[in-house]
Amino acid sequence: MYRNFRFDVISVADRARCGILKTSRGEIRTPAFVFCGTKASVKAVTPQQLKEVNTQIILSNTYHLFSYPGAEHIKMLGGLHKFMGWDKPMFTDSGGFQIFSLGYGSVANEIKGKRSGIPKLIKVDERGAVFKSYWDGNTQLLTPEKSIKIQRDLGADFIVSFDECTPYRIEKKRTEESMERSHRWEKRSLDAFEQFNDYSQALYGIVQGGIYADLRKRSAEFVSDNPFFASAIGGTLGATKEQMYEVIEMAMNGLNISRPIHLLGIGGIVDIFKGVALGIDTFDCVHPTRIARHGGALVKSQYRDGSSREHINLKKSTYKNDDSPIELDCNCLTCRSFSRAYLHYLLKANELLALQAITIHNIKFMNALMEEIRSGITQNNLKTISEKWC
Amino acid sequence: MYRNFRFDVISVADRARCGILKTSRGEIRTPAFVFCGTKASVKAVTPQQLKEVNTQIILSNTYHLFSYPGAEHIKMLGGLHKFMGWDKPMFTDSGGFQIFSLGYGSVANEIKGKRSGIPKLIKVDERGAVFKSYWDGNTQLLTPEKSIKIQRDLGADFIVSFDECTPYRIEKKRTEESMERSHRWEKRSLDAFEQFNDYSQALYGIVQGGIYADLRKRSAEFVSDNPFFASAIGGTLGATKEQMYEVIEMAMNGLNISRPIHLLGIGGIVDIFKGVALGIDTFDCVHPTRIARHGGALVKSQYRDGSSREHINLKKSTYKNDDSPIELDCNCLTCRSFSRAYLHYLLKANELLALQAITIHNIKFMNALMEEIRSGITQNNLKTISEKWC
Repeated sequence: MYRNFRFDVISVADRARCGILKTSRGEIRTPAFVFCGTKASVKAVTPQQLKEVNTQIILSNTYHLFSYPGAEHIKMLGGLHKFMGWDKPMFTDSGGFQIFSLGYGSVANEIKGKRSGIPKLIKVDERGAVFKSYWDGNTQLLTPEKSIKIQRDLGADFIVSFDECTPYRIEKKRTEESMERSHRWEKRSLDAFEQFNDYSQALYGIVQGGIYADLRKRSAEFVSDNPFFASAIGGTLGATKEQMYEVIEMAMNGLNISRPIHLLGIGGIVDIFKGVALGIDTFDCVHPTRIARHGGALVKSQYRDGSSREHINLKKSTYKNDDSPIELDCNCLTCRSFSRAYLHYLLKANELLALQAITIHNIKFMNALMEEIRSGITQNNLKTISEKWC
Repeated sequence: MYRNFRFDVISVADRARCGILKTSRGEIRTPAFVFCGTKASVKAVTPQQLKEVNTQIILSNTYHLFSYPGAEHIKMLGGLHKFMGWDKPMFTDSGGFQIFSLGYGSVANEIKGKRSGIPKLIKVDERGAVFKSYWDGNTQLLTPEKSIKIQRDLGADFIVSFDECTPYRIEKKRTEESMERSHRWEKRSLDAFEQFNDYSQALYGIVQGGIYADLRKRSAEFVSDNPFFASAIGGTLGATKEQMYEVIEMAMNGLNISRPIHLLGIGGIVDIFKGVALGIDTFDCVHPTRIARHGGALVKSQYRDGSSREHINLKKSTYKNDDSPIELDCNCLTCRSFSRAYLHYLLKANELLALQAITIHNIKFMNALMEEIRSGITQNNLKTISEKWC
């Protein structure tokens, strides 16, 4: 069913593991970070620049591309890889997360200021979700079958089952009902996938179940019992960091660990170390590239400014006269070429180059982090590595 | 006086010539195009990308840098080259053009939306020009001595005398008076330059005189009679293309052609061919990079859309399904990676990558144009070359 894909665990340290995720577009060394190219472009950088800083895999959002320019348009132009000039592995998500988040406003940032204003979730029933497009205000229905069809048209290597995303603060009974609907939708996703499987894509199942240990375990077992290529942990991860780690652990209890395991939407440095220690193989998050566009540069602990943040804010006047690079030991183009003072100036002067330069650094940072984590697993010294980065 | 600079004419075809402009930061093959990095950054691209498309020289604007972050700040950070990570030759202008244009609004585009609104020229007297900064609204006086001091602090290789820019529609007597004031200011610029000359910079004189043949000739002779390293043709070039070519010719009549000759602010393809034919060595203009940020991609005649423009507008729906690159025979990163359809989509989706990608193409286009012009001069077939590009 997934003959062109393969996952081999090559090294283990407690529950953390290094693996190789094989695709016809190349291998991904795990643990790995997946960068967000929401609208078929990792904002402000070229595919060449992504490769220059060792990017293995990126993700595009089905919801955005479905709204505009449309999956059939991209298919007509040769698929997502050709369209955007990226020949390495790619993910698309199911579109569900964005649609269900709309009701709660959490992706408002991404879409604010666009056309006809804030999008809106209208209703959810057994068929799927009815919503108004952020792009043109049209009412749309997204179903499991349609999500898979769109993802097939887009042609990413890794695609994701359509599920219902429930918010954090709902009671157990509603979480359970929603999880069961997600399972039915995931089954339908799998059926739709198998019907036209041409071996060019591999399907992820998603673990739901909120913050409830028994539900998370049941959902993880559902995913493991069905012929998905891999598993992703989705839905709410709780209200605190501690709860998040607990929820990941709950899901891990039911997951088939011979398959790759993805943690959706998490990209903090500490969180990545925690996730890796619990057995997570891949992560994605807009955080590294989004903060870059607001002047936030990721730095290892020695380069921080004393705040609890994992990045420094180059807009701060502290950096006005600072002629050192973002990180002295980073060899990315930005750190080789520009001082913090120059980046500070570019941000203040509203120069586009700032966004590109800081994005390049943050991507390099995340890829270097994951590389050191892999070596930390192989050499069984993750703790030492973690002190340097956290 | 200019011992680290040198200009050698190596090939001539009628009045057009190929030369080598030597600096301690490398050679410039002329005719050459100078790209605008107005605020110490060529908008949307890195210095590395500039080099990848064979850029020889760029320009920054004294007026903008003087307003923010200040020349002394840049000096403290090692000068303009180090500040912005560009190690090849650079120009700065005198600041005069922006200040005098303010009264007429022609640089409003560049500065619109910035801070305290539209800047304002308050008065001009024998000392210099009093104006309100676009950045902070403070009243400033710019004199020849101050312009040279600022340009020394910035540290570009080629710097420019401070002159008065008069608008097109003024009578001959006022044009003559203004020209004479410019000459006095240029003398003061030269004195200020010589006083601290450390051989790291070379000074351009500027030819004024409006649209009047006798004034242009007198002004050109003034520049040629004084120990400037090179000459630039400034001020109004008239109201029509034909008048512009005439004005260039008037100036050329009085210029010392053993020195390099720059034409200020001109960047159209036809205009460059005309200028080269009249003996111009270098050109600068924001046009190629500015239109890029509005979706305008420069193309050779065979790739145009039938309009009289030298570029195509990728925002037009014509390009929605066009899976060819901007130019089939261009080998820039953009043309190797992206289709017109993708660039059209990126523009419509407000993706930053569009600006960078089209800017890269337009810079490559201009550099390829200048390279072919140089070979056209050497091989005496400028006319054939011109048909391909115009």
